[in-house]
Amino acid sequence: MTKPPLARLPASLPDTIPFVGPEAIERRLGRPFRARLGANESGFGPSPKVIAAMADAAAGSWRYGDPENHDLRVAIAAHCGVAPDEIMAGEGVDALLGLAVRLYIEPGDPVVTSIGGYPTFDFHVAGFGGRQVKVPYAADRENLQGLAEAARREKARLVYLANPDNPMGTWWSAAEVEAFADALPEETMLVLDEAYGELAPAGTLPPIHPLRPNVLRMRTFSKAYGMAGVRVGYVIGERGAIAPFNRIRNHFAISRMGQAGAIAALADQEWLESVVARTVAARERIYAIAAANGFEAIPSATNFVAIDCRRDGAYALAVLEGLADRGVFVRKPAAPGLDRCIRVSVGPDDALDIFEAELPGAIAAADALTAKRA
Amino acid sequence: MTKPPLARLPASLPDTIPFVGPEAIERRLGRPFRARLGANESGFGPSPKVIAAMADAAAGSWRYGDPENHDLRVAIAAHCGVAPDEIMAGEGVDALLGLAVRLYIEPGDPVVTSIGGYPTFDFHVAGFGGRQVKVPYAADRENLQGLAEAARREKARLVYLANPDNPMGTWWSAAEVEAFADALPEETMLVLDEAYGELAPAGTLPPIHPLRPNVLRMRTFSKAYGMAGVRVGYVIGERGAIAPFNRIRNHFAISRMGQAGAIAALADQEWLESVVARTVAARERIYAIAAANGFEAIPSATNFVAIDCRRDGAYALAVLEGLADRGVFVRKPAAPGLDRCIRVSVGPDDALDIFEAELPGAIAAADALTAKRA
Repeated sequence: MTKPPLARLPASLPDTIPFVGPEAIERRLGRPFRARLGANESGFGPSPKVIAAMADAAAGSWRYGDPENHDLRVAIAAHCGVAPDEIMAGEGVDALLGLAVRLYIEPGDPVVTSIGGYPTFDFHVAGFGGRQVKVPYAADRENLQGLAEAARREKARLVYLANPDNPMGTWWSAAEVEAFADALPEETMLVLDEAYGELAPAGTLPPIHPLRPNVLRMRTFSKAYGMAGVRVGYVIGERGAIAPFNRIRNHFAISRMGQAGAIAALADQEWLESVVARTVAARERIYAIAAANGFEAIPSATNFVAIDCRRDGAYALAVLEGLADRGVFVRKPAAPGLDRCIRVSVGPDDALDIFEAELPGAIAAADALTAKRA
Repeated sequence: MTKPPLARLPASLPDTIPFVGPEAIERRLGRPFRARLGANESGFGPSPKVIAAMADAAAGSWRYGDPENHDLRVAIAAHCGVAPDEIMAGEGVDALLGLAVRLYIEPGDPVVTSIGGYPTFDFHVAGFGGRQVKVPYAADRENLQGLAEAARREKARLVYLANPDNPMGTWWSAAEVEAFADALPEETMLVLDEAYGELAPAGTLPPIHPLRPNVLRMRTFSKAYGMAGVRVGYVIGERGAIAPFNRIRNHFAISRMGQAGAIAALADQEWLESVVARTVAARERIYAIAAANGFEAIPSATNFVAIDCRRDGAYALAVLEGLADRGVFVRKPAAPGLDRCIRVSVGPDDALDIFEAELPGAIAAADALTAKRA
């Protein structure tokens, strides 16, 4: 008996995938990281009320979660000021991005993204056979004009924009994002990833109303709400754009603990505000650490800071590896131009203390390695 | 600005979907069910050690779960007697079924299933444009000979078999399932759904070894382990059939609480054994309740019992609705022939007490309704 063949598209996809978790690195290094500052998680954690709500829900987990996520959608809708059928909840933005790609593209259809943007979106586009049309960043920001031009030129079916952006932490104003949405051709749906939106300055997120028929706005409980490991995200859109998710989504995918936790998270806006304040303070501290080491932080609207190491990608990679050798997990952009940076997530002071203490040694090691190679 | 069009396949899919959760019925009825016996959940609950492990993991949920599910796969592999790369873990069998369909079929490809089999598999096949070739049950069991003949005739890319079966609770012996796998044509992958496997009599599940290259065996923590609301399932297969899931899966989809809970569940086989014993006893009690009411239970290898109401589908539906009116949630098969049954999940005695007390009233109501219609 031989192995039956895969369908052509999955057969054509690479086995290498862009998702190396810190646990895999820890297993390779043979020891845990002392400071986990690489995955844009919130070291400030979820609200204690969220933790309590999830712990309370654990015993009831013999039941499937409500497949309509009714109470969660009602809570999100009230929070956002929309109707429940203008919300689709899902098992994290990653899952919702995959569904959006599947809803809008067929093999060969053009999809516009930025070079060096969120790799999971690219993973889904490749996975459904989309033709990726990529636009470089300009001055460390996603290039709105370039993205809109590419969308028009290619009659793109989807264009992806993260605002604020990952991996650079930069952002556009609400007015600029709205003008971008209005400049897209009529066949293009804008996937607007606002995963970091709660952490951005006022004036970054466009108003919710009017809902635009050509925009799907993605939000998450993974970042500011500190619930990355729970898997709850949502999309805001016109109901005609929201309903089709029901045709293809995994209806029972959000756990009962996740539904309870996300509802509790929305109810504790005081916690969110405290996390935002601590995130702003931690960004400032990372800026200062970068400057004290001769690097230059790029101002961020997110829960991480891209630090320009002021040399090439190989050098920044050496700094990252020096940090890993010293127990500090950070990540870095890989795209040309952006790759001069390392990306450091915010965290509580004890984690940043370790980063601050170990960065000079990592830099010295990178300098020595670079001198040896030269 | 108009709404950008969907891709052709999702545009062609129906808006109606087969997933009405008990919560939706409760919202419609305006009151909660007193006995939840319709979703094949385990009212015996997860192990207390699982509940404790998930509650303990809640606070750490600011971190993403390990995208490789390494520790979980190692635990599952040890439990099953295979290697970790012969296991793929996922956010429930529903998600894994969708991935399997996506890996093997292209629009128009033939997929063989049973009429009245698991609707979520059919949902995925439709969602990816497969051509469904359906075989009726024979004597309340999935028809192995008919399924194999259809697979050979159609050169099917996938054939789905649940053993034990849902919704009838019937089963085939391990030897018969192995002969079925061996009788499939070389282009056919068998998706063998063993979600209820732990609850079946000895001799129902084929031995794990040798792993067959044309079989993907699906298992779950949702049924015997009592963790339906947590979302953890897995596939066992040859590593060449397992690895491609990495090309398309949602890598971070299993929550940290879910990974911790599933590991704890495997470690508490004593709990599993107690659930199996209680399930067997509850099945016997449901058989007796059915007989006492003039109905006939179909012997089951699962955590539910199909009860033949000995009339047509409309009558069985009236019994189901009579139960719902009395606060008892059960479900029923919809396929012709099978629709004469209601499907009652096992549960602890207090839930079965309610079922036993309310069934005569539901029957009387159904009898009255039927007399009125005649």
